[in-house]
Amino acid sequence: MSIVVVGSVAFDSLKTPYGVREKVLGGAATYFSLSASYFTDVRVVGVVGDDFTAADEAVMNKRGVDTRGIQRAKGKTFFWKGEYGDNVNEAQTLQTDLNVFASFQPQIPAEYHNSDFLFLANIDPVLQAQVRDAMPNVKLVGGDTMNYWIKDHRQNLGEMLKRVDVLLINDTEAKMLADDSSLPRAARKVLELGPKALVIKHGEYGATIFFRDGQFAGGHHPFRAPALPLDEVRDPTGAGDSFAGGFMGYIASQGEVTRNVLKHAMFYGSVMGSFSVEQFGTERLQSLSREEIDQRFSVFRELTHLD
Amino acid sequence: MSIVVVGSVAFDSLKTPYGVREKVLGGAATYFSLSASYFTDVRVVGVVGDDFTAADEAVMNKRGVDTRGIQRAKGKTFFWKGEYGDNVNEAQTLQTDLNVFASFQPQIPAEYHNSDFLFLANIDPVLQAQVRDAMPNVKLVGGDTMNYWIKDHRQNLGEMLKRVDVLLINDTEAKMLADDSSLPRAARKVLELGPKALVIKHGEYGATIFFRDGQFAGGHHPFRAPALPLDEVRDPTGAGDSFAGGFMGYIASQGEVTRNVLKHAMFYGSVMGSFSVEQFGTERLQSLSREEIDQRFSVFRELTHLD
Repeated sequence: MSIVVVGSVAFDSLKTPYGVREKVLGGAATYFSLSASYFTDVRVVGVVGDDFTAADEAVMNKRGVDTRGIQRAKGKTFFWKGEYGDNVNEAQTLQTDLNVFASFQPQIPAEYHNSDFLFLANIDPVLQAQVRDAMPNVKLVGGDTMNYWIKDHRQNLGEMLKRVDVLLINDTEAKMLADDSSLPRAARKVLELGPKALVIKHGEYGATIFFRDGQFAGGHHPFRAPALPLDEVRDPTGAGDSFAGGFMGYIASQGEVTRNVLKHAMFYGSVMGSFSVEQFGTERLQSLSREEIDQRFSVFRELTHLD
Repeated sequence: MSIVVVGSVAFDSLKTPYGVREKVLGGAATYFSLSASYFTDVRVVGVVGDDFTAADEAVMNKRGVDTRGIQRAKGKTFFWKGEYGDNVNEAQTLQTDLNVFASFQPQIPAEYHNSDFLFLANIDPVLQAQVRDAMPNVKLVGGDTMNYWIKDHRQNLGEMLKRVDVLLINDTEAKMLADDSSLPRAARKVLELGPKALVIKHGEYGATIFFRDGQFAGGHHPFRAPALPLDEVRDPTGAGDSFAGGFMGYIASQGEVTRNVLKHAMFYGSVMGSFSVEQFGTERLQSLSREEIDQRFSVFRELTHLD
């Protein structure tokens, strides 16, 4: 089954201890699309400027991603410049030019409306809510957000949270959203705001999914997927969006959304996140095979599997 | 099979967001002993002062711990006063009085010499090396250390590392010891210093064991045990020592030291750490049952188990 993703398409300039890249293809929707494309049909909604070339678009098309939902606007594409030090979990933003993204009004092409799954990448929660309402028949909606919206757009975010089934955020965002320093307590509070399940990403320590009681067949105990201890994290950019792509993509590839499917989706999310950071930008996500993915899935499984 | 633990016996004054306790029984060897006592026979070596009462000793004896190796010295028992804020992973030390511990010279009672396992809790690495050399016939030696020894006693620590089979430390200590910000790379460097296996504890995110190639039957890929997402961490003191007690205690209870045994030991370590922090001091470790422990083991297994 197909999935629609709405979010940023961008150019990133990146500096990490492993090197430097100028204006490479990035953005949440891009990472998500490429990652999810190994599991299901992906349709992307976003906006780009005059500097977005046919070659850029072809990166997605080569992976079978439907880009008819990418609008072209006058001006430049969203640009982000960031640097990572030794602590790969913390990016230092050097420059953010929203450009055409500042006035992004998502439009869902008619051809996308029969999609069963929807992912709302990190954009203004007002837009997220609008998109969700424009696709009332989807089976499951996933969503992301960030500290900026949590801090200063709480009411709009509240409306968005009532409209997502699975929210994917990191530890800091979860604690900030719930105003609680205990992660499991924060998780419970966030689940009271709307989502049926909450995925909290712990960076190099993996991710945990918390369930609202009685929402998914198979029980409501939390479940944790590990992250692979990687020697070389060349570029952490997009790890979270790649996780979301693997997670949602796997769910969309299955007939039903059960606890068991969500557990496997957690592992596939971790797997795709681990591939993404091995190379700069979306490089690694452009050239994977399903065999490589399933091989790493086995490694992840072995990492925590007791006989 | 029995295990000897050498380390501190102490009194702790504790303040956490959940309350305050004055001068309760603590110390690495105490937490370790109580935790390991649910799996195997434990023999403790330490030193206490005049203020250590029969009732204090009885806490260990009730759990079957052999306390003949606890020396009595003139003066007061090691005292530590600490406080935890909202971040339960970081203790603020308010007072440390080494007292009789300052001149601790471990003596292994004759009755302990037939023990097959040894755990060197966090003390001066010179003493750790002496104790290890005094027990040449043990099957497996576990050890702990801390930033103080890593920073300023590197050479002595090097001698100790050549004498332990499994080192148990946390993320910060591993990175400091290897002078490397990448955890898996740090792990590999630490393994080159001596240990056959390295357990790195990640606090609320669990722990990972890294293996030196070809040291244990069953492969050398790392293995990760989760920590239970706990709503209420009442007192984090002793979590690491309780983990070590469960880990080493379980190993000592098994006939052989294989990768599979070490994997299960990682889970039992996590289980005991999770019990320890539920109540202040050693309270929770004094009154467990093996049924409760195995029940929680199942919960931990379920937390990461894919069908």
